[in-house]
Amino acid sequence: MIKIEFGNSFVTDAVVDINYVKVVPQTQLPEFIAVNQGENFSISYGMKKKDIVFGLGENVGGMNKRGGIYESFCFDEFNHTPDKKSLYAAHNLIIVDGERKFGLFIDHPGKVRFDVGFTDIDTLEISMENPNFNLYIITGNSLKEIVKKFRKAIGISYIPPKWAFGFQQSRWSYPDMTSITEIADKFRNSQIPCDTIYMDIDYMDNYKNFTIDKAKFPEFSEFVKFIKNKGFRLIPIIDAGCKKEKGYDISDEGIENGYYCLDKDGKPFVGAVWPGHVYFPDFMNSKVRTWFGDKYKILIDQGIEGFWNDMNEPAIFYSEGGIKKAFEKIKSMEGKNIGVDLYFQMKDTMEGISHSIEDYKSFYHNVDGELINHYDLHNLYGYNMTRAAGESFVKNYPDKRILLFSRASYVGMHRYGGIWTGDNKSWWEHLLLNIKMMPSINMLGFLYSGADVGGFGCDASAELVIRWTQFGVFTPLLRNHTTLGTRAQEPFAFDVESTDIFRSAINLRYALIPYIYSEFMKAAKESECYFKSLAYEFSDDISRRVEDQVLVGDSVMLAPIYTPNTFSRNVWMPEDMLLWKVGDYTDFNYSLHPKGHHFIDIELDEIPLFIRKNKILVIGNHSHNIDSIDQSEITVIAYVQDLATYRLYNDDGVTTNYMNGDYTELDITIKIQEDSKPQVLTNLSENSIIKKINYLIVNSKGQLFKL
Amino acid sequence: MIKIEFGNSFVTDAVVDINYVKVVPQTQLPEFIAVNQGENFSISYGMKKKDIVFGLGENVGGMNKRGGIYESFCFDEFNHTPDKKSLYAAHNLIIVDGERKFGLFIDHPGKVRFDVGFTDIDTLEISMENPNFNLYIITGNSLKEIVKKFRKAIGISYIPPKWAFGFQQSRWSYPDMTSITEIADKFRNSQIPCDTIYMDIDYMDNYKNFTIDKAKFPEFSEFVKFIKNKGFRLIPIIDAGCKKEKGYDISDEGIENGYYCLDKDGKPFVGAVWPGHVYFPDFMNSKVRTWFGDKYKILIDQGIEGFWNDMNEPAIFYSEGGIKKAFEKIKSMEGKNIGVDLYFQMKDTMEGISHSIEDYKSFYHNVDGELINHYDLHNLYGYNMTRAAGESFVKNYPDKRILLFSRASYVGMHRYGGIWTGDNKSWWEHLLLNIKMMPSINMLGFLYSGADVGGFGCDASAELVIRWTQFGVFTPLLRNHTTLGTRAQEPFAFDVESTDIFRSAINLRYALIPYIYSEFMKAAKESECYFKSLAYEFSDDISRRVEDQVLVGDSVMLAPIYTPNTFSRNVWMPEDMLLWKVGDYTDFNYSLHPKGHHFIDIELDEIPLFIRKNKILVIGNHSHNIDSIDQSEITVIAYVQDLATYRLYNDDGVTTNYMNGDYTELDITIKIQEDSKPQVLTNLSENSIIKKINYLIVNSKGQLFKL
Repeated sequence: MIKIEFGNSFVTDAVVDINYVKVVPQTQLPEFIAVNQGENFSISYGMKKKDIVFGLGENVGGMNKRGGIYESFCFDEFNHTPDKKSLYAAHNLIIVDGERKFGLFIDHPGKVRFDVGFTDIDTLEISMENPNFNLYIITGNSLKEIVKKFRKAIGISYIPPKWAFGFQQSRWSYPDMTSITEIADKFRNSQIPCDTIYMDIDYMDNYKNFTIDKAKFPEFSEFVKFIKNKGFRLIPIIDAGCKKEKGYDISDEGIENGYYCLDKDGKPFVGAVWPGHVYFPDFMNSKVRTWFGDKYKILIDQGIEGFWNDMNEPAIFYSEGGIKKAFEKIKSMEGKNIGVDLYFQMKDTMEGISHSIEDYKSFYHNVDGELINHYDLHNLYGYNMTRAAGESFVKNYPDKRILLFSRASYVGMHRYGGIWTGDNKSWWEHLLLNIKMMPSINMLGFLYSGADVGGFGCDASAELVIRWTQFGVFTPLLRNHTTLGTRAQEPFAFDVESTDIFRSAINLRYALIPYIYSEFMKAAKESECYFKSLAYEFSDDISRRVEDQVLVGDSVMLAPIYTPNTFSRNVWMPEDMLLWKVGDYTDFNYSLHPKGHHFIDIELDEIPLFIRKNKILVIGNHSHNIDSIDQSEITVIAYVQDLATYRLYNDDGVTTNYMNGDYTELDITIKIQEDSKPQVLTNLSENSIIKKINYLIVNSKGQLFKL
Repeated sequence: MIKIEFGNSFVTDAVVDINYVKVVPQTQLPEFIAVNQGENFSISYGMKKKDIVFGLGENVGGMNKRGGIYESFCFDEFNHTPDKKSLYAAHNLIIVDGERKFGLFIDHPGKVRFDVGFTDIDTLEISMENPNFNLYIITGNSLKEIVKKFRKAIGISYIPPKWAFGFQQSRWSYPDMTSITEIADKFRNSQIPCDTIYMDIDYMDNYKNFTIDKAKFPEFSEFVKFIKNKGFRLIPIIDAGCKKEKGYDISDEGIENGYYCLDKDGKPFVGAVWPGHVYFPDFMNSKVRTWFGDKYKILIDQGIEGFWNDMNEPAIFYSEGGIKKAFEKIKSMEGKNIGVDLYFQMKDTMEGISHSIEDYKSFYHNVDGELINHYDLHNLYGYNMTRAAGESFVKNYPDKRILLFSRASYVGMHRYGGIWTGDNKSWWEHLLLNIKMMPSINMLGFLYSGADVGGFGCDASAELVIRWTQFGVFTPLLRNHTTLGTRAQEPFAFDVESTDIFRSAINLRYALIPYIYSEFMKAAKESECYFKSLAYEFSDDISRRVEDQVLVGDSVMLAPIYTPNTFSRNVWMPEDMLLWKVGDYTDFNYSLHPKGHHFIDIELDEIPLFIRKNKILVIGNHSHNIDSIDQSEITVIAYVQDLATYRLYNDDGVTTNYMNGDYTELDITIKIQEDSKPQVLTNLSENSIIKKINYLIVNSKGQLFKL
């Protein structure tokens, strides 16, 4: 890819491997890209009518971004309705897939706006509020090639521990030992596998980072052990803002050392989040990153093995200055006959105090002695918070994998942690958004990702949580999470029949771990995607526009149900496929379908799993958590017309020894012979963990061979 | 249908024809309905797994309501996200279509809650906050039969003038003569047909009902004529709340005569809407209805021929008491360290002042001398405002049809006016919601209805407005409308190519008037539906669950495009069908498809129109408005396997003479003979307006006969 520098851009460390980058002068900008100097600085491209535009990672809209305006501006967007332009991330990669195929990565830490044929139906216009940015242009013959080139330049994705691929349970909040224990026991009693329980903000002493509320957890490290003995890990939340409180060491240390962001007068900037007034660590400063990152040790020393970094856009409920102005404005309206104009002003005043641009423009980062306005670096904040933790983990625990994921992100953060897609809602529309978003997020290298399954805001129906879980079975991060005050939505929170369906789906997840983990690790190591749009692998016009089916790894296609009361759907099969409607995963009932459009019945307790032609799926067995899975036996499920091969990757799942070659790769080859019978070529080494392989092989005639 | 009285219910006048009602005692409640006396009063039904539940008219969710909670509580729901439970209407009809088939109509003027298998997956529970209601139970062999029985009992639907079937243009606002004239000229210059231009709140003098801002319209009646000479009618908005202002006659008269709702101390209740402080006419009082209804004459006398009644849930921005409390609460927070709890309280305080339950409970209606709390009658308010206008029109202009539709409604209001579906957004999701809602609304008799095409809130893309208009071509009320500050979305507001597509679609609308008007009038006269779910006509399991296709009248099925960047879709054809992809309606290009699933290509400029087997579509010609259409020639388009018949209804379109038999019915019969050629049996009477009929007849072999 080529890099063209405009102005004097801040170094974001998004691109780290310069071997894949060729810097060229502005004069070598391709002729199809126009540069426009207007009120904002923009570049534009004249799209052809049927060009498809992929990219933008975590954002609203479809896989095809055409027809909308999007912004990269990390934002605490709790209510992401279809008119919103920005979510929690800034993923400035956009790829035109048409007559001309190319990707553009805008490396710019400020707000970037992508008008993808909204204002003018055929114009892609990307604008920045200041002209300092690096433009990377990636050409290639396919979406896949472009993504791969880009990924090579931004570095290898974060790899979580294997147990982080288990089912995870969260809510705001299981606030204390009793509630956590109760949830843990309910999982075990209902025989639903689960690996982690999340600790939302209430575990802290007054929402102070790296503290524990002693009233709720008198012996925290003992409790961590107690829960771990039940087979669960606890995952506490860490917020960006640190409570302003004399005597609270993080508050005091940060002030003493000048580690917090400053206001225009050079005093620590005060915003407000959960505890009220907070300071914001200046994560742009490497010393602050080291300081803050090392604080995670406080919890790790008590047995904690994973974290989620939240509110790091950063979310700011209000600033001291902002709320003062709002109060004055509101008071000035008192006693007036408030009609249409003042009424909306009044509403806007209160709405406007949160996450306000004015506040973001009112504080500063100290970058090597230079004060830079936060607004201009806004999109790097969450990235560098997570980088702080990630770098500290590598330094302090070089051999251990620690679970880490973040709400806000920028390109490059994928090297330090995963992401979840933020505060969605229990809307069917957000299940579909989740499906559409996964391939886009994967292009940026955020392989360890997922949505709040069942939806965070609002009450969920059993059916919604079931259908969402059935999709979530395939997302690397599979976490059921909901907010304060909503209906309980754990897998055992509904009726008995629903619980049975959840159990089957989650058992399948655990059985799929050999495949999911193998595909995840290969995608990470080879700069590939784990979730892919059909356009990624198929170039026909129908596949390129499919928005409600995805590929998972090399062998599987999904066509989830994402509407209520739905027991059938249309499925486009871009090639011949084998359909396994999975209820109980030990029951392999299949049907073959030729390439084409198919209308498929799918009952509430069925997950339709499509195995591609000449591809192989590997499953194992479920257990109550990842650590306890018996790995000695696997089942190979294959749909072979002539020849299928698969490389099954595995490693210890908890250390970083895989980096030193400490992993296994089992090559499986299945040939169909002239008599239509399969021949299997697989060599188990003597010291292999796997001792037995079962084969379920379907040939093109639909004959099943059990070997 | 049977009627069972519970408690002492308020007389709503929803049901008007007692010939269709049999009153039975509570002891005769069918055994499958359970009555539960708990905190609320509820009735419940144990659903079978695959029961489908239709109904609830204007509300969120699908055609099949199962899996959600809905409320009937007329509400100014500007932001109708999927978690909302109530929109602007209270349409308490719910129909179980399963092993057992029956409808329930809850005639109750207060809030009604329908839990359709949300809390318990198999239980339909309908609860009321007080036990005074009439329960109607309608049994039948089909959805269609149940709806028809119900409709017979609630009376004949409102019939608008024929010109109200033309294209209509609105926005908040075309505030003055200049802007209205400009819009009118743009329609004529771009050769896009249009019949009306809407006047939103800014035409009034300080938002005072029945006044005109003299600065904007110095000679209003002259301007009405001027615009009518250009071929447009002006449609002003009327709000429920009347400005509190000494010297404003409506304010003064209402106070003098005690025509306004009262607070608990017997003083006129003061809320606030557009002009700030307003009084709310007590529409429950027949004298007030007469007084207010007669006020429409003020505008009719100036040449106005249609109205839209708005804000009549009623919307209340705040009450005097409510805003005072809110100010106190906000001030009490000043200077505090506002953390998570106070922060949300602060936000809720400002959110909570609008349309608050507390306010609705704080004022009273005078019903025959008895003061009844508004909250208990809430859902009747908009209904009775529109009834006020409708009754006055019948009294004052018995021969003339006047356009009238309302935002809020209750069952029975369909006799007085139509409805639009309120303040939707420029979201693709709301186009789909519009599609799903039309059959539900039709069941309640609200035949003259439609959504704000293109979406009211938010900015719209050309593509969204195009696809929405392509569906809107079939809604009786076809109005493009958007709010203050959004992107212009008139059919000429985008690029030239889009304008061409809008022109084709709207030309088609005008050409379809013979069919649309005929089907509308027959549906009204025969208590039938104009928009129907497939479940209405087809009983197979696939048809019963289709949520994104609808039937329009007797001959046509629609399968609209409702997602962006989409140029194809799956279509379920419940019987053999003839597909006409309409671009230019004078170009009849067709294809035949057998019953089954089909994947159909649909370009942006195409409207896929499916003509049913043995059915007939009649089209005419377009013109710049309805009045100027040449009705002398029609084209009959038919797909005939053996025999097709059609009755084409028509009348003068402006008077009520049709009630006295002054209408025409042309019977068209087409037989396919043994040689596969069609034989046409149609007799034009000598005095028929129609002088020429062209026939385009396709037989089952796909042969086209032009006769």
